[in-house]
Amino acid sequence: MMNMRKKIGISLVRTEVYDLLKEEILRGEIKFGQRLNIRKLSKEFGISPTPVRDALLALAAIGLVRCVPRVGFFVTELNENYINETTESQIMVETFCLEKYFDEIKNSPDILKIYDEAKEVVNTKSRKLFDDSDQNLHMLIVRSSSNKTIIDFYEKLWDKMDLVRHLNKRYLDSNKEHLLIIESILRNEKKNAVESLLKHIENVKNETLKNLESSKVTE
Amino acid sequence: MMNMRKKIGISLVRTEVYDLLKEEILRGEIKFGQRLNIRKLSKEFGISPTPVRDALLALAAIGLVRCVPRVGFFVTELNENYINETTESQIMVETFCLEKYFDEIKNSPDILKIYDEAKEVVNTKSRKLFDDSDQNLHMLIVRSSSNKTIIDFYEKLWDKMDLVRHLNKRYLDSNKEHLLIIESILRNEKKNAVESLLKHIENVKNETLKNLESSKVTE
Repeated sequence: MMNMRKKIGISLVRTEVYDLLKEEILRGEIKFGQRLNIRKLSKEFGISPTPVRDALLALAAIGLVRCVPRVGFFVTELNENYINETTESQIMVETFCLEKYFDEIKNSPDILKIYDEAKEVVNTKSRKLFDDSDQNLHMLIVRSSSNKTIIDFYEKLWDKMDLVRHLNKRYLDSNKEHLLIIESILRNEKKNAVESLLKHIENVKNETLKNLESSKVTE
Repeated sequence: MMNMRKKIGISLVRTEVYDLLKEEILRGEIKFGQRLNIRKLSKEFGISPTPVRDALLALAAIGLVRCVPRVGFFVTELNENYINETTESQIMVETFCLEKYFDEIKNSPDILKIYDEAKEVVNTKSRKLFDDSDQNLHMLIVRSSSNKTIIDFYEKLWDKMDLVRHLNKRYLDSNKEHLLIIESILRNEKKNAVESLLKHIENVKNETLKNLESSKVTE
């Protein structure tokens, strides 16, 4: 998510269009590979073409949209490579931050809050609660670095992963894995925590790849 | 560097403005903290404001320029935090790639070419040759991942590091450290190679911080 406050004026329109288009792609209202026409979109939104272009360039910068020079913008095709690349990037960032900022994460008041959330998901089986707690845990690990360059990269990566997140139907298993990671952190077992994190991300990737395959078969 | 070919039409103007502004900032013609006025720049370049805005947004995306909503664009101030953040990001990406893609790097024909370049720098003491060889070595490590998401992030980071590269005056020492890294790779000593790489990046950071400090004193 872009961190923009309300009443930002010129930047807000761009962010709103960005969020709207992202949501439409996520909900399947705009299909993978479909062309995105600036003039048509700006008419539909009732705004000038500039913020639409800006939003498309921002979506292209994170890889959700492809910009073909002289032709136009297209929604990126979801494929195995997309999932492998985003997962590998996630592993790179999260394992680096968890190893280096382990103490900051362990001593953060947020880790206990997230631990409670994860236990609550076991009781309520709420997907919504899991999705929030999922984001809170992974973001806590990365934000503990306080490195804006790394955090920006990861936030864009998170947006990119949103596209495949619905393919992960094993959220209760994911939640169990979160509990393992959190408990290792709280017990001050860095090596276990990093290994559990790595295993968790790999498991999500394998499930996502499997469901991508079966979603292709049924199309 | 953005990978754009000539004859790209609309995208080319944006890329040219991006490169031009970056060069002007690098050469100190545009000072840190200075305001960048879209209308004024588009008049000076003799082009429409849109590609200027696009270029400024692209420079903002990599952190060279700050976008203050409702106020305008400003060249980022160089400070210790800037150097610490870019260095840490570089360490994260390069150590990950060197560890994971060690065999690909070791068996790449480019590593021998870069080895020759580094030996040539010892003989000629050419800064220009060092700069090329520097980029070739660090890029080889990261491109060996074939992960477009990681490579894109690193290329933007490289652009960002361009701003402080002139503060590293110890290029002959850097070159010696490159030789150590390359020789460890060629001898198949992964652990040594990663340690040498880490030490090298830390050394460059310390020199850069030291020269940033003295450049402040003399201002």
